[in-house]
Amino acid sequence: MIEVTLLGCGGMMPMKNRWLTSCYLLCNGHAVLIDCGEGTQIALKNTTCKAKKIDMICITHFHADHISGLPGFLLSMGNEGREEKITIAGPRGIERIVKSLTVIASGLPFEIDFIEVEDHKAISAAGMEITPFRLRHGLECFGYSFYLPRSGKFDPEKARANDVPQCIWSKLQKNEETELDGRIFTPDMVLGESRKGVKLTYCTDTRPCKSISSSAAGSDLFICEGLYYEQDKIERAVKTGHMLFSEAARLALESDVKEMWLTHYSPAVKDPELGLAAAREIFPDSYCGYDGKKTILYYPED
Amino acid sequence: MIEVTLLGCGGMMPMKNRWLTSCYLLCNGHAVLIDCGEGTQIALKNTTCKAKKIDMICITHFHADHISGLPGFLLSMGNEGREEKITIAGPRGIERIVKSLTVIASGLPFEIDFIEVEDHKAISAAGMEITPFRLRHGLECFGYSFYLPRSGKFDPEKARANDVPQCIWSKLQKNEETELDGRIFTPDMVLGESRKGVKLTYCTDTRPCKSISSSAAGSDLFICEGLYYEQDKIERAVKTGHMLFSEAARLALESDVKEMWLTHYSPAVKDPELGLAAAREIFPDSYCGYDGKKTILYYPED
Repeated sequence: MIEVTLLGCGGMMPMKNRWLTSCYLLCNGHAVLIDCGEGTQIALKNTTCKAKKIDMICITHFHADHISGLPGFLLSMGNEGREEKITIAGPRGIERIVKSLTVIASGLPFEIDFIEVEDHKAISAAGMEITPFRLRHGLECFGYSFYLPRSGKFDPEKARANDVPQCIWSKLQKNEETELDGRIFTPDMVLGESRKGVKLTYCTDTRPCKSISSSAAGSDLFICEGLYYEQDKIERAVKTGHMLFSEAARLALESDVKEMWLTHYSPAVKDPELGLAAAREIFPDSYCGYDGKKTILYYPED
Repeated sequence: MIEVTLLGCGGMMPMKNRWLTSCYLLCNGHAVLIDCGEGTQIALKNTTCKAKKIDMICITHFHADHISGLPGFLLSMGNEGREEKITIAGPRGIERIVKSLTVIASGLPFEIDFIEVEDHKAISAAGMEITPFRLRHGLECFGYSFYLPRSGKFDPEKARANDVPQCIWSKLQKNEETELDGRIFTPDMVLGESRKGVKLTYCTDTRPCKSISSSAAGSDLFICEGLYYEQDKIERAVKTGHMLFSEAARLALESDVKEMWLTHYSPAVKDPELGLAAAREIFPDSYCGYDGKKTILYYPED
């Protein structure tokens, strides 16, 4: 399962009643943070999410509202005693940008690894396969698909056919390769075909584009930006490389996702719920994201 | 007069109920901001202070809790349509540090001027003389004294003795040099001795030192850090280059200031009022600063 917490849902600037868009994914006891704008460390403290569980921070792009909180976030993790390495993934130049920002955060007591992500080249963290995909914004920007795979069902017939001693069945069932009497036993010797896992797709900031619907295809949850909901804001959305709620809904429909959460509202959008009906006309399972919104994505029932 | 608003009163990290220490001084319709940690732009929006009035930002030092909010602050000023130049003053390297932080804030629609401040070398903004003074912290750090001068009283006898035509008395009284019939008239030709102005002294982060009490001498308001109030925290205060409330109170007493506000509390200090009595035993006019605390410093009665 993946526990998803939307830490904030604002775009452009932090507001007193709306944190900047950021998302925390907990899986297998480890976490991934997506984006870290000004105030994300406070937004996180408003939830039950723990910074110390974060193994990787995925940055979508280098606009301030998605990364300006990073120096403070890293420093606070250091103050809380973190010593474990953290990985920061993002567009080309991620190391240079983070080093530039952390000129005011010297002496961090942990290492930082950097990954320059590439279109459709998967990375992994917290047991999830993470696939970056390129978006259409003013500068290089990536969305991310997170997939938690699921192994096959235990198959005692297969185990017996493969001569697997019963005393190591349960270890193999937990996906652990096991050695016994000099022989290596692998999980596939006792497990059936892999089953459908859990998929989450996240994208801000962007105009609609094909790579979104193909990357989001079949997601259990699709978190997508919607800067405005009024149709007359379309020109402004196009100019700034953003979307309307209705455009996000169309992508959700095309991608055949189970549920969509809107996020990254303009500061001018005081009540995003007012724009929800229009999105639901296109894609009924549209919901407004809000600070602290949380869900758990479970494996489907067999 | 100087209108003083303490935007935040926290140290180290922003908290959900306490913004990082920052101060806004309004004088002659123009403003100076002291420090800009993560969230200062939101803290400012919680008050009646206006970002567009800010002519100068004085940075005390380059620890993240005093400067990490700068890229977002500048971007938001740009989004609000600012075109007027802004001056950022701070320790040696201020231009390099700000340029490093604003790698994520390109295309600002206004110019930034930089001033590297020096010990006791006055600069000026919003009609105030601003005197930086060196503090004792882990890295170069400055306090700032703000002095709003006051010209002398109008003296008609002096005006007559200097042959100043009556039709320009009021202009000279407003401190405006005036030309009439090819002759230059200066304000001192109609004004008496300069009178005592208004003085505010601000200092975080530092151990107590002589330069503080000499710089703060005679201030109407002394805003001073107090990271902890418990006496048993002295070792930690010394180690991190900070002060106890009692040490701030002693400086206030030595400096013969009218009133002291404490600020820059450790996140561990849940209720600073609990430490106030100890400070008042030393300096009775000690007060706890809080987010949004405001006062107006008027010229003294003649």
